[in-house]
Amino acid sequence: MAHPAVAHPVAAPDQLTAALAELGQLLGNRLSTASAVRESHGRDESYHMGFPPDAVVFAQSTEEVQAIVGICVQHGVPVIPFGTGTSLEGHVAALHGGVCLDLSHMNQILRVSPEDLDCTVQAGVTRKALNEYLRDTGLFFPIDPGADASLGGMTATRASGTNAVRYGTMRENVLGLTVVMADGRIIRTSRRSRKSAAGYDLTRLFVGSEGTLGIITEVTLRLHGIPEVIVSAVVSFPTIKGAVDTVIETIQSGIPVARMELLDEVQVGACNAYSKLSMAEQPTLFLEFHGTANGTQEQAERVAELAASNGGGSFQWSTSPEERAKLWEARHKAYYAAMALRPGCKGWATDVCVPISRLADCIVETKADLAQSTIVAPMVGHVGDGNFHLVYLIDPDNAEEVAEAGRLNDRMVMRALAMDGTCTGEHGVGYGKLDFLTAEHGEAVSVMRQIKLALDPRNLLNPGKVVRV
Amino acid sequence: MAHPAVAHPVAAPDQLTAALAELGQLLGNRLSTASAVRESHGRDESYHMGFPPDAVVFAQSTEEVQAIVGICVQHGVPVIPFGTGTSLEGHVAALHGGVCLDLSHMNQILRVSPEDLDCTVQAGVTRKALNEYLRDTGLFFPIDPGADASLGGMTATRASGTNAVRYGTMRENVLGLTVVMADGRIIRTSRRSRKSAAGYDLTRLFVGSEGTLGIITEVTLRLHGIPEVIVSAVVSFPTIKGAVDTVIETIQSGIPVARMELLDEVQVGACNAYSKLSMAEQPTLFLEFHGTANGTQEQAERVAELAASNGGGSFQWSTSPEERAKLWEARHKAYYAAMALRPGCKGWATDVCVPISRLADCIVETKADLAQSTIVAPMVGHVGDGNFHLVYLIDPDNAEEVAEAGRLNDRMVMRALAMDGTCTGEHGVGYGKLDFLTAEHGEAVSVMRQIKLALDPRNLLNPGKVVRV
Repeated sequence: MAHPAVAHPVAAPDQLTAALAELGQLLGNRLSTASAVRESHGRDESYHMGFPPDAVVFAQSTEEVQAIVGICVQHGVPVIPFGTGTSLEGHVAALHGGVCLDLSHMNQILRVSPEDLDCTVQAGVTRKALNEYLRDTGLFFPIDPGADASLGGMTATRASGTNAVRYGTMRENVLGLTVVMADGRIIRTSRRSRKSAAGYDLTRLFVGSEGTLGIITEVTLRLHGIPEVIVSAVVSFPTIKGAVDTVIETIQSGIPVARMELLDEVQVGACNAYSKLSMAEQPTLFLEFHGTANGTQEQAERVAELAASNGGGSFQWSTSPEERAKLWEARHKAYYAAMALRPGCKGWATDVCVPISRLADCIVETKADLAQSTIVAPMVGHVGDGNFHLVYLIDPDNAEEVAEAGRLNDRMVMRALAMDGTCTGEHGVGYGKLDFLTAEHGEAVSVMRQIKLALDPRNLLNPGKVVRV
Repeated sequence: MAHPAVAHPVAAPDQLTAALAELGQLLGNRLSTASAVRESHGRDESYHMGFPPDAVVFAQSTEEVQAIVGICVQHGVPVIPFGTGTSLEGHVAALHGGVCLDLSHMNQILRVSPEDLDCTVQAGVTRKALNEYLRDTGLFFPIDPGADASLGGMTATRASGTNAVRYGTMRENVLGLTVVMADGRIIRTSRRSRKSAAGYDLTRLFVGSEGTLGIITEVTLRLHGIPEVIVSAVVSFPTIKGAVDTVIETIQSGIPVARMELLDEVQVGACNAYSKLSMAEQPTLFLEFHGTANGTQEQAERVAELAASNGGGSFQWSTSPEERAKLWEARHKAYYAAMALRPGCKGWATDVCVPISRLADCIVETKADLAQSTIVAPMVGHVGDGNFHLVYLIDPDNAEEVAEAGRLNDRMVMRALAMDGTCTGEHGVGYGKLDFLTAEHGEAVSVMRQIKLALDPRNLLNPGKVVRV
């Protein structure tokens, strides 16, 4: 995928000046044009090139977002919403200049209803802040993409992560949204009942829309009871196929596993080095079971049997929080361990997701392809969903390496698509996977474009992301 | 809600004639203008007035649907998709004339992947036909709205039913769709991986769109393993509040109950009379638990305790298929039993859904309101979701009764909305709940209208349903 070399501003200079003057009047020192602020708001955690916005504004309420969008749209200035900047496909880059709308000050938890297992938060609340707040209620919010992302950003990117195999993704856990539209309308997409057949599913339309259809300002979320018992387990395999076949059989048996993570032998080696562990440098599954004492034991025993029948080694498991943390330590520090394999490198993180029956083929073929390359790329997977990640460890100044990583990535994505999978299971499109979206959806992309143009006819909401206009 | 008194045809007579001539050439005797065929295709199972289409066509393939839509749109003739005609809010009424597109001949099961727990069917396959086909695979499709509806129709109306509390609705169980758009494009909304962050969620946009955004021709569905053990249970309560509080506490405890149905004392009386049973004429819960032997026993025991603490009578439960069928007999025949309370009557079926914490209030207030009326209306509820139904038993020729049922219904819907619930948990909007949609969603309806107009600018796909244009 070729990167745009430079930003293409769409606002006329005098219009931009007029917009910034009005925004300054509205927001005072919550408008910044300082270079460091702009730089940090124009790039995310990915290897993708950053593009700083012309200014950054910090909103404090839905009504203020409405006013900001109104000013920007009136002057033809793009608006790019920003949560924590932890996205992975260049989602926040100001490709066409404009104003970055930082929602991190909107960090109020507006309502928790333990009796309905739901809550409403402002978009800037992070998932850890929410779970901290919920601590004494016996409830938790399970979606865990790794980063302590904002819940607005997680909604906008349809985030997922380690618990999705049991609890679903943001798609299943967002009950409703407050959204500011490009023309300034404020809408609420849904009431608070668990299900509804009342009209088009606007909630799901905005989940995963990456700030291109409207600005999400409030999120109503489904909560879950903290399980009575949590069992963690780790088991390693002589072959990646043995590990993946265990996953496939577990899912096919309907065992309601809560987490099912794969680290390949490269990643396990990285973790040993980084955390001074002595795990067998083999493909390894990290598991978690949630439920009653009987239920979790039943689940763990069944998976242990499946693992043994696929060549798995000793099935280590525990219910004590300390031992569980120790068992999972390698998984929790996987990203940092991967980066430490090559000090000074940049990590190009990518993900695909395939039907579970094709997971072993997809992983084995991808690893065979990697074996032909000089690029090191540890693999971590939310394999219970058919989803896995690679991090290509590259020197960003070495054009040949960047190109080689690009070729590897192209082949992996096209392999996943050929297996009826998706170009991204959870990272989203941003501007990094625009072309793959067309490869995946074909004519359906033109329907997405019609929706985008209907709701944002001047293409001012996070332009250049998800669909080209 | 006022009914339109007559259909308002939108196609000019010569254009309609031209379209029917071209359709006849394409389809031969799969085009019918016979009065009986038109009549039966212009009404559903609701009390809503039927409006016969000008013709009925029977399609056999996606490409044929594309050709039919092409001819109709070219001549400005509305197209109304039709599955089994079992909808409940007038969804298939040809309010503006046009062609009814019957998909029941598209009844092929195209693919079943037991290893991925999914399948793809043509839109005309019914849920019972699919489950019959799956019988030897160990899998089943759980969504059960009562009627043996087509899976295309169930998708279009976001159907739900008794199993939704455990397995979700069509929203959670449709993985992808093939859709013919108004301009003839054929799109596939999604690949087959369990999750994806690749672009706008077109799948969920078409689920519940009631034929107004495109014609669904193929559906990819999630399947589930048939549980090892199924336990059924029945328990009755002296008060409706005791029954509903048991439901609320069960859901709040996170017990993964598979079915949780409430029949009020009026409905139980109707069932006793109809099926010659001798159940206590009290509010009664019908339950089902799915899982392992240990797991289901654990669930049943916990719910039995909750029921006892809320004044429940004896908790009768069984695992044998025959006894289970007997326990559930009253529930299965509830609709016919209700209708038999007043021979010759028409049943006006309606549903609302509220947050679970408000369910007891909503049901108790609704029953108090009914007690002030002469209209008999048994209540059945998928109460685990916060969803319940009334059937007003009325003489459709008695204008006063119809008006009184309308007033009762208005009050129930507005009560549910005031409790942050929805005007329809599972029946959909059709033309029966158009005005309630605006009451529920406010400005968001204007966003729905923009999407409708973007994808069907001439308003020819099932016009007059979901949103007014």
